[in-house]
Amino acid sequence: MATTIAGIDLGGTKIFGAQVTLDGTGSGGTASIGTETKRSTPRSSVDDIVAAIAEVGGALDDHPPRVGLGTPGVVAPESGIVENAPNLAGFDRPVPLAELVSEAVAAPVAIGNDVNMAALGETRVGAAAGHDDVLAVWMGTGLGAGLVLDGRLRVGPNGLAGELGHTTVVPGGRRCACGGVGHVEAYIGRRALEASARERHANGEPTMLVDTAGDRPMKSKVFAKAYEAGDQVAMSLIDEGLDVLTIAIANVLVIADVTTVVLGGGLGERLADVAVERIGTGLADLHYAGAAPVIVEGSLGDHAGALGAAFHAVDSIGVR
Amino acid sequence: MATTIAGIDLGGTKIFGAQVTLDGTGSGGTASIGTETKRSTPRSSVDDIVAAIAEVGGALDDHPPRVGLGTPGVVAPESGIVENAPNLAGFDRPVPLAELVSEAVAAPVAIGNDVNMAALGETRVGAAAGHDDVLAVWMGTGLGAGLVLDGRLRVGPNGLAGELGHTTVVPGGRRCACGGVGHVEAYIGRRALEASARERHANGEPTMLVDTAGDRPMKSKVFAKAYEAGDQVAMSLIDEGLDVLTIAIANVLVIADVTTVVLGGGLGERLADVAVERIGTGLADLHYAGAAPVIVEGSLGDHAGALGAAFHAVDSIGVR
Repeated sequence: MATTIAGIDLGGTKIFGAQVTLDGTGSGGTASIGTETKRSTPRSSVDDIVAAIAEVGGALDDHPPRVGLGTPGVVAPESGIVENAPNLAGFDRPVPLAELVSEAVAAPVAIGNDVNMAALGETRVGAAAGHDDVLAVWMGTGLGAGLVLDGRLRVGPNGLAGELGHTTVVPGGRRCACGGVGHVEAYIGRRALEASARERHANGEPTMLVDTAGDRPMKSKVFAKAYEAGDQVAMSLIDEGLDVLTIAIANVLVIADVTTVVLGGGLGERLADVAVERIGTGLADLHYAGAAPVIVEGSLGDHAGALGAAFHAVDSIGVR
Repeated sequence: MATTIAGIDLGGTKIFGAQVTLDGTGSGGTASIGTETKRSTPRSSVDDIVAAIAEVGGALDDHPPRVGLGTPGVVAPESGIVENAPNLAGFDRPVPLAELVSEAVAAPVAIGNDVNMAALGETRVGAAAGHDDVLAVWMGTGLGAGLVLDGRLRVGPNGLAGELGHTTVVPGGRRCACGGVGHVEAYIGRRALEASARERHANGEPTMLVDTAGDRPMKSKVFAKAYEAGDQVAMSLIDEGLDVLTIAIANVLVIADVTTVVLGGGLGERLADVAVERIGTGLADLHYAGAAPVIVEGSLGDHAGALGAAFHAVDSIGVR
């Protein structure tokens, strides 16, 4: 029986919503998207962000029967409290986002980490459809990931499952923004790559990355163009970052026995061809047993999070 | 309702069986052990090993209603075919062990990797009882591990889940017996420790390890005594091995969001105090978020595998 859900993806710069109609659940389900809407994310307060989410929800459906919501940060699975989302105004302390949004829209809300939602979307109806054991790796500002096991999202008691960016791969290596040492996120993602590029530039190595970006943040496009042009600094940093990431992915294949890896995120989309090729070759050298994993680029683009949030709402709240 | 199962643990040197009565399933279940029996593992052929398992099963119950069996190696989850168990005679090629034992005992058989069975036993009624998200790390000849998520054993589509020993923690590091580079099992477990100790002894470093073991294999007791006596080679190798293992465990905490770590196995039991202390301290430095994990020594000893196999039989075949 078909059911309709407001799937909403809260990002640091925009809020995207889609009216999602799901027919069947689990790995055999299908999804179609009706009305879509988006607006910029308020940079003022938690209250304004909640009101904006409710506005997006209301634009999809006057009385949405239920809402699935993806958000940056770590989401506590029972309470729906969000932590570690510094890119959202007012989120420098824990925010009971599920409760606040549920009150604002007068409907039950299922909430999850944005990359976890994307992982679920890509597994159910995206690039990993038909696979039940999937790791989604999202390269953006940092490095996020989500884990689907036996067709279900692995959340974990602390909502931490899949935090691949904070696994240690280079003992004694670079310091991560979180304070850890040798974490994957210290090597790949826009923030880490930009910091390394500016350091090498300051030490006298010329690079298109700094020439193009100037004092502005380096966008994904800037990295992709410099890599394609053969810029030495861009190539060495990105290749090194992908090699570190490859080890981290191999470790997940061994620990969790997943069979499929989906790559996405802003930087991931721009570097998709390079990343699929380099990670695939690297895994063949590293992986210790079992069949070689399938490695694919995500296929849902900006819709992955909203679609996954809709599936998460059905998984969490049930169909009614 | 209580149900009785023949729980059998097939090892390289002995086969241990216990009549296990389970009352309730899942994390609230209890288990009691009735008749126990053991015999040595035949070193001749697959047929003889299967007959010996059937003999152990028959000593527990004339007509066992169902059998849970733990075995070394990688166990394919659907077929029950065992691979990579070189310590068992005739297991140098895939063996359909579940099918062979089921025919010999005329009862349904649920089969799993021996460390996975121990992980399940320790989670349901051992040192991790009351916890639902558990990593069990078994230090023996090599390094095995098992993963319990949301109270259920994670097996994975290839039966590989939890193979912590073959995660890469030291890029460019020591070569593992499997051919990989920088795997955890190249640093900890009797085989790796003995190889390193003999190499350092051959290079002129005196060590009790070689003095005590001579040309015989180094047993767990030998490592524990040398460590306690302050032998420099033993201490540096074991400390290094535990530090590498700590990184691997931290990575599982982050990837799978488990809350509890159980240490066991022959070497693990002998080094339990040192390992619990050193891994606990190391994790506090490495772990990036969430509460500090609980780290405990296994409490079921040689019974862990048979008890876990009984639970696995109920989980897999159902109560009837």
